[in-house]
Amino acid sequence: METQSFREIVLQYKAVFFDAFGVLKNHKGLIPGIKETFEFLDENDIDYYVLTNDASRSPEQLAQIYQARGVYEITADRILSSGMLAREFILSKIKSGTVAYLGTKNSAHYIESQELSTLSIKDLSLQNMDHVKALVFLDDEGFDWNLDINKVINLLRLRNMSVVVANTDVAYPVSKHEIAVAIGGIADMVEEIVGKKFIRFGKPDAQMFMFAYEKVLEKRPIRRDEILMVGDTLFTDIIGGNKFGLDTVLVLSGNTLPDQARLKIDSSGIIPTYICDSIQIS
Amino acid sequence: METQSFREIVLQYKAVFFDAFGVLKNHKGLIPGIKETFEFLDENDIDYYVLTNDASRSPEQLAQIYQARGVYEITADRILSSGMLAREFILSKIKSGTVAYLGTKNSAHYIESQELSTLSIKDLSLQNMDHVKALVFLDDEGFDWNLDINKVINLLRLRNMSVVVANTDVAYPVSKHEIAVAIGGIADMVEEIVGKKFIRFGKPDAQMFMFAYEKVLEKRPIRRDEILMVGDTLFTDIIGGNKFGLDTVLVLSGNTLPDQARLKIDSSGIIPTYICDSIQIS
Amino acid sequence: METQSFREIVLQYKAVFFDAFGVLKNHKGLIPGIKETFEFLDENDIDYYVLTNDASRSPEQLAQIYQARGVYEITADRILSSGMLAREFILSKIKSGTVAYLGTKNSAHYIESQELSTLSIKDLSLQNMDHVKALVFLDDEGFDWNLDINKVINLLRLRNMSVVVANTDVAYPVSKHEIAVAIGGIADMVEEIVGKKFIRFGKPDAQMFMFAYEKVLEKRPIRRDEILMVGDTLFTDIIGGNKFGLDTVLVLSGNTLPDQARLKIDSSGIIPTYICDSIQIS
Amino acid sequence: METQSFREIVLQYKAVFFDAFGVLKNHKGLIPGIKETFEFLDENDIDYYVLTNDASRSPEQLAQIYQARGVYEITADRILSSGMLAREFILSKIKSGTVAYLGTKNSAHYIESQELSTLSIKDLSLQNMDHVKALVFLDDEGFDWNLDINKVINLLRLRNMSVVVANTDVAYPVSKHEIAVAIGGIADMVEEIVGKKFIRFGKPDAQMFMFAYEKVLEKRPIRRDEILMVGDTLFTDIIGGNKFGLDTVLVLSGNTLPDQARLKIDSSGIIPTYICDSIQIS
Repeated sequence: METQSFREIVLQYKAVFFDAFGVLKNHKGLIPGIKETFEFLDENDIDYYVLTNDASRSPEQLAQIYQARGVYEITADRILSSGMLAREFILSKIKSGTVAYLGTKNSAHYIESQELSTLSIKDLSLQNMDHVKALVFLDDEGFDWNLDINKVINLLRLRNMSVVVANTDVAYPVSKHEIAVAIGGIADMVEEIVGKKFIRFGKPDAQMFMFAYEKVLEKRPIRRDEILMVGDTLFTDIIGGNKFGLDTVLVLSGNTLPDQARLKIDSSGIIPTYICDSIQIS
Repeated sequence: METQSFREIVLQYKAVFFDAFGVLKNHKGLIPGIKETFEFLDENDIDYYVLTNDASRSPEQLAQIYQARGVYEITADRILSSGMLAREFILSKIKSGTVAYLGTKNSAHYIESQELSTLSIKDLSLQNMDHVKALVFLDDEGFDWNLDINKVINLLRLRNMSVVVANTDVAYPVSKHEIAVAIGGIADMVEEIVGKKFIRFGKPDAQMFMFAYEKVLEKRPIRRDEILMVGDTLFTDIIGGNKFGLDTVLVLSGNTLPDQARLKIDSSGIIPTYICDSIQIS
Repeated sequence: METQSFREIVLQYKAVFFDAFGVLKNHKGLIPGIKETFEFLDENDIDYYVLTNDASRSPEQLAQIYQARGVYEITADRILSSGMLAREFILSKIKSGTVAYLGTKNSAHYIESQELSTLSIKDLSLQNMDHVKALVFLDDEGFDWNLDINKVINLLRLRNMSVVVANTDVAYPVSKHEIAVAIGGIADMVEEIVGKKFIRFGKPDAQMFMFAYEKVLEKRPIRRDEILMVGDTLFTDIIGGNKFGLDTVLVLSGNTLPDQARLKIDSSGIIPTYICDSIQIS
Repeated sequence: METQSFREIVLQYKAVFFDAFGVLKNHKGLIPGIKETFEFLDENDIDYYVLTNDASRSPEQLAQIYQARGVYEITADRILSSGMLAREFILSKIKSGTVAYLGTKNSAHYIESQELSTLSIKDLSLQNMDHVKALVFLDDEGFDWNLDINKVINLLRLRNMSVVVANTDVAYPVSKHEIAVAIGGIADMVEEIVGKKFIRFGKPDAQMFMFAYEKVLEKRPIRRDEILMVGDTLFTDIIGGNKFGLDTVLVLSGNTLPDQARLKIDSSGIIPTYICDSIQIS
């Protein structure tokens, strides 16, 4: 499959949105050469953001991963997660009471505020649930899958409330050959069983791209077609970027393997503007 | 909603298939009056079987529940479970090697045989899985949902094998107001994530009705329209019975409540031949 | 079901988004009293837009329906259709060549531009299709369903291209008791058969609400929670408005009937901020 | 991909079920060599049936295609179509009144009987529909797709009745490179819009295999694992045969191309017992 030079492509744009996993990092750590890429973007006055379907950690904690490996360019304010959209929704819609969540204590920071109290699903009793005003799926860790998924199902059958899923992915990679169920996969199962409609945040949904676009506009006026979306997954990064009116780069450093890229593009009908091996600029 | 007398209806048939939960028993135990119903069927020489989407216990153990409460008519040979179909499939398709399963040791009896060894998913190591020839979803208990569901997903990504789901239900009742995820719901989530096609056994699939019909035919020749299917659920018992060519009774003693029956029939388009309050004959 | 006064509610907001069918008009024509509502909004300096999943007619033609009945407040620039988003996408993504469409000549105005030529699917020959760069589903009229749907399927199997659906609805009302398949329903069938991923525009997708929000912001700064979304359908208007951070009114003058509203809200988990009989202010 | 000899495989079985399209015939006519195969089966006393998801023509008309080309072995009584199951269902469930259908006059023979009158959907008036007791999807020809699909949708919204789909396929081949929407695809669209549950007959559903198995048993006792199912499609022929307990052959003479077979098997998890180039025995 013939690929193009990321360096030459990116010079045509004023801002870049990066997916994280498969583009900037993988199971071994950071993908080689990304520090040079971000230096190159800074030198050429090209703005950048990381868009991630991850509500398990705060932007500060996510940024720390890059900083600890010397990529100081990726600061917390450049990381936009689906958890931040979930937070915005909860704060605007729920004015008082308790928000229950599936996830770790750490992930719960996304929904904490002065007005709301938060409650891990593992600490909820179905005998005392009238104060619960909303439920958020944040992370696949921090609760007992058997006990607490069943508890969630009964909570939603007994009381009507807004339900938010802060990560649309159904699985995520944990090592070279292994994956794990993501909280989005658990949410799909619960939604099927209770028959209600959940509100999901994360790529490929337009709201994620709009959130990033608004950040870009705070600094300077830029048209959508002056922004490049870079991702390794056709069904989230590329279709979402295309639909929002961005140009798109499919990189082959993540879950779309070089020998499958053409077949996947042809069979899905999701067509990136460009294909690059990776975001290395040399 | 006007209902009819089960006694008068059943006299027109030569055999009856009963769903178990919501028809013969509920969260409180046996539904009142069923002993009289089975005595009445025996007196009138009407044959009967219980068809259940349950692979957690053997027919012997399931029969024990009725026997312990004095309903001696329901013997193990009258109970036909989706687990028995799963067993038949495994024995005919897998000639040697190991069959891995999700479920309790108790449920594993469905797949035991002289030729095959069985292995609980919780005892499987992904480093040593070449001997596994098939996987069966039997019961929602007996394994760690978090660790072992993830293990199953990676097993199926790494090796291609037949996968059998021995219960098509996504949830089951555990008390008056509470339900729990059934193994069929877990199987749906795994199937979505791995993108493979599983083989499912249980109502409303025709194979379950065919299995029961063959039992009936072993004793005497009966046409399908001489058999009555009795159930509390439109989407499994009634549509399955209708499609197989049986006449069907919807009873209102289980998950279809009297004040919702008409709405559910009209909105689903699944039309039972008759509607009865319960199977009580007096 | 207890409902609230639209007049009192709307006074708390700075802008209102209205769904068209079931809110402003129905099969008999305009819903009584809407002229007074728009006069009231003008008097109180409340901005308003109509958001419609309709790509069969231009905003000018859609406005004409209201104007001809004396509601001069609803001008073309206040009507935002999913067709306008489809147009924006096509113009940004397709730089030259032909865009094929399903729909009337009238609906094709949405995709016309100086750079692109448009071609009705009924005039396309599969022997000469190399110039076709994209396909748009615009309207359910203007082509032969049998011949031309089959032609579309083979076009998409033979060539990979961007496919846009300019209306997410699967059906629309044509009289008091009758509905018709909308172009979104036809697109679903084609997508299932060809196995590709189409790009859809229309409520409940966030892009539709963002488009309207940008219009509002052109005039003055307004926060999202200062905008009210009014609709008759939980699954498009209400869930879309909620997710975008707007407050929402479910009106009972369209496809959610008064005696079903509570049941539909409870079973779907889609909860409007308010429920009103209609948008009448007196 | 290494394939095996059909001749050697088939000698191990007492009966064979053949899919028609892609196995016995294709867009050019009969697949070369099939006459020799059927002579070979007769010589070796191996029984055979053709199982087809086709309700557009009667078994007599379908047999005529083979007979006209010299394959006299395939007689009408050896052809089992999904239309025959639909007929059986209708005759057992509908005792009087009118059965409406989508299809040609020719396809309607499947539902004709002394007790029932049949009515093409194109001749139905919604003003006079009280006599209609059931609806059957038979063939994609014989009606106006636009007018009559809309008429069907309104019929099903206005009256509750049994709905039967006599062909589960969503598309079928019409030439080397072209396909057309099958009646099963139209039924899927209608089912989505009206929200009701239709009854479908055809592979991979077990009822189709059971129907054929009963034919085999009329002649002599045979176990299921003594029967071979031969097909070109993993998702209908192979998974259906596997589940019913038959051994299965995937042939590469139809819609599974030789260079894709391994990939399709690995990604679907549907594993045929054998793979052969075609059913040629020499």
